[in-house]
Amino acid sequence: MEQIERIGVSLDKKLLSKFDKLIAKKGYPNRSEAIRDLIRRQLSSDQLSDPKAQAVGAVFLVYDHHATMVPQKLIDLQHSHLLHAISSLHVHLDEHDCLEVIVLRGQVGQINKMADSLLSMKGVKLGRTNLLATEPA
Amino acid sequence: MEQIERIGVSLDKKLLSKFDKLIAKKGYPNRSEAIRDLIRRQLSSDQLSDPKAQAVGAVFLVYDHHATMVPQKLIDLQHSHLLHAISSLHVHLDEHDCLEVIVLRGQVGQINKMADSLLSMKGVKLGRTNLLATEPA
Amino acid sequence: MEQIERIGVSLDKKLLSKFDKLIAKKGYPNRSEAIRDLIRRQLSSDQLSDPKAQAVGAVFLVYDHHATMVPQKLIDLQHSHLLHAISSLHVHLDEHDCLEVIVLRGQVGQINKMADSLLSMKGVKLGRTNLLATEPA
Amino acid sequence: MEQIERIGVSLDKKLLSKFDKLIAKKGYPNRSEAIRDLIRRQLSSDQLSDPKAQAVGAVFLVYDHHATMVPQKLIDLQHSHLLHAISSLHVHLDEHDCLEVIVLRGQVGQINKMADSLLSMKGVKLGRTNLLATEPA
Repeated sequence: MEQIERIGVSLDKKLLSKFDKLIAKKGYPNRSEAIRDLIRRQLSSDQLSDPKAQAVGAVFLVYDHHATMVPQKLIDLQHSHLLHAISSLHVHLDEHDCLEVIVLRGQVGQINKMADSLLSMKGVKLGRTNLLATEPA
Repeated sequence: MEQIERIGVSLDKKLLSKFDKLIAKKGYPNRSEAIRDLIRRQLSSDQLSDPKAQAVGAVFLVYDHHATMVPQKLIDLQHSHLLHAISSLHVHLDEHDCLEVIVLRGQVGQINKMADSLLSMKGVKLGRTNLLATEPA
Repeated sequence: MEQIERIGVSLDKKLLSKFDKLIAKKGYPNRSEAIRDLIRRQLSSDQLSDPKAQAVGAVFLVYDHHATMVPQKLIDLQHSHLLHAISSLHVHLDEHDCLEVIVLRGQVGQINKMADSLLSMKGVKLGRTNLLATEPA
Repeated sequence: MEQIERIGVSLDKKLLSKFDKLIAKKGYPNRSEAIRDLIRRQLSSDQLSDPKAQAVGAVFLVYDHHATMVPQKLIDLQHSHLLHAISSLHVHLDEHDCLEVIVLRGQVGQINKMADSLLSMKGVKLGRTNLLATEPA
């Protein structure tokens, strides 16, 4: 079971009142939850600066489905031994465009390299990669 | 059918040679493809600065599945009339954590608001939102 | 005088121990200082999403000083009545390139517009804008 | 003297017309200048992912000038043999707060480390670091 600790944080009244307004706007149930989120986000972004850190990444691609090489590349990806392609989601956006979300697990540097090779393909119009640091399995 | 135009770009030799190395590293088949990507990305980021622009967004959440409110919130989301939840993908990361990717369509401001209300939930450990500008349907 | 308040934050031991390591690495004197920083940064980034928010901006430009229009543009800027150019710093980088840092005060949208018109000038090779939200004067 | 080369880029009419609108809005004199900017920016961001790359950095701090350790730290910085502090700019924002812009030259990793140690000081309220990749001297 997780052990919970309680720490004290001192801050000036004005800063606290602004923070309370912001967390109400964002919908946080209480200050602890909002502060834990800030801490987790900073830890994650710090870890991701190391190309060898373990991460889960999601590559989002918008591509023209007449650009038939993307599905082929996705199959190649399954055979990569450096990355683990967990799952993917395909959405039909309109008569031309598809959105593909590919969830990968591996090292930050390897995920970014795979993302580059997907985003540079002919027919891929837009793309972005999201990384979240995970603990080593 | 799309009409293709050809434009000329002048740049100094040194810059061009560095660019050629970068696009080879990233795997682009040719310069035109790489430049089109730069242009599309800048157009997308410019559009997204308008909270009323149409976009496709993917919200990427890692949460503890004992935090049972997330699935409930996702159901509420289906009933939102401001956003269109296109699809979602659920991945089991380990005995505690799940990754959920939710693909939404709507205005940038509305997607961000929904993302805030998901990311601020108890049990959600990490999250990020990716937006890609789309043309008005 | 500032009034200090003390709040309690509960978080699990493992998260706390990782946070303690990170703040030691970054050199924070204590947890409160690190958490205040996270809070201030989030407040600032939230405010900056409003184009009418008051901000201090610094525009960094690297330009070829043979591109003589930049100094002229900087003089025009002094005469803008929408922005207040507080100060600027000029650094000679090498025989070709100068770095100019221009500190501006005004609305986020106005600062970004001025930055765009500086960054798009012939001879300007690289540039970036940094914004920090300030309270209305 | 710089040698200029001219390359051809093919893109569809619709994308080109959107790009033309964007560059007019941003104030670019012509397409070549806008495309050169996109290329330079991508090269710079690619280089900066290497912690050993040479860069010019500007650290931008807002601090309470009653927090007297900042000027001391800035003096220490002059004596660092890993970084070259080129210049700094001090702006009085209001009765409490100062803005300090410190321009540094060195390796990306070293600049970020110094920035962390400045941003974590007591009294420093907000800060950000901007990096621009430079060629090795």
